[in-house]
Amino acid sequence: MEPVEKRILKDGSNLGNGILKVDGFINHQVDPGLMDVCGQELAARFADIGATKVLTAEISGIAPALMTARYLGLSVVYARKSKPITMPDQVFLTLAPSHTKGRMVELIISPEYLSGGEKVLIIDDFLASGATILGLVRLAQTAGATIVGIGTLIEKEFEGGRQALAHLNIPVESLARITSMEGDEIRFY
Amino acid sequence: MEPVEKRILKDGSNLGNGILKVDGFINHQVDPGLMDVCGQELAARFADIGATKVLTAEISGIAPALMTARYLGLSVVYARKSKPITMPDQVFLTLAPSHTKGRMVELIISPEYLSGGEKVLIIDDFLASGATILGLVRLAQTAGATIVGIGTLIEKEFEGGRQALAHLNIPVESLARITSMEGDEIRFY
Repeated sequence: MEPVEKRILKDGSNLGNGILKVDGFINHQVDPGLMDVCGQELAARFADIGATKVLTAEISGIAPALMTARYLGLSVVYARKSKPITMPDQVFLTLAPSHTKGRMVELIISPEYLSGGEKVLIIDDFLASGATILGLVRLAQTAGATIVGIGTLIEKEFEGGRQALAHLNIPVESLARITSMEGDEIRFY
Repeated sequence: MEPVEKRILKDGSNLGNGILKVDGFINHQVDPGLMDVCGQELAARFADIGATKVLTAEISGIAPALMTARYLGLSVVYARKSKPITMPDQVFLTLAPSHTKGRMVELIISPEYLSGGEKVLIIDDFLASGATILGLVRLAQTAGATIVGIGTLIEKEFEGGRQALAHLNIPVESLARITSMEGDEIRFY
């Protein structure tokens, strides 16, 4: 069993309606040792795809993306959800629905850090419906970059993200693949 | 010269009005190798203060705090700026002015992950006026925790943060201490 799966069973909570609480080790309190192990594993799975940059979305994608990028020796870019004053006026911007916020959020990348010819590995904490990741895909494609892989810590297979990404025809890897969250139970692939 | 200082001179930009653009290696695109070196250095400087938890604020504090916590073998908690649905109704909340957003933002921590008796090391990307860090201090103190140290990557000494934190009487460490940003120049301590 993968370390993330074990940790979900130990410290995660099934809040019902497909909501998985993992804020004790991923997205409020973070366990750096676990992130390190996950980064190493994702880097190993994507070692041969020729990625030149790791892309994620703030906020909770940052920790796994940073650790993966560290093992691959690449820079990581995180799409911002609001435009800081240090960013140029001309940016790549798309909208994506936020699962945890219940509204649309902006995803913004400066053209300074994503350009044509880059081969992009997308890393995020969750693959659920795939909407956030598809937002990152649109941004990268607008920049003229190619997506070469998608990796996440936790996939909720029953939300259909894998199917939504299938047309990209690239490897999609998740360290914990949850097939169902009926009742109190959490079942893995 | 510290690695962060070198990198600021190489890839940072002085945008005027005290605004330092470091989004090529810290707060939009991140260099994991640099963050690793910084985390190791901050961990070494705070090795003997008995910290039990690292605390930071989303978004750009996450990378340096994660790397520092990894070297100290501690968990890191990042204060959220909006309350996710996975968080309990009762939270610790304070307001702090955001330098880059030009408005007040909320800083929120779940009582699940910060409790009385914790010895907290605060790590952030910037020490400017100290307002965000003082917000984190208030949250930790409300939780009954003790602040034992404050570390940042970059300090803008001319904005007075170090003085604003002096009453805490704890070690404050910054890897790059900028004393002035007159004209195009960036001067270090």
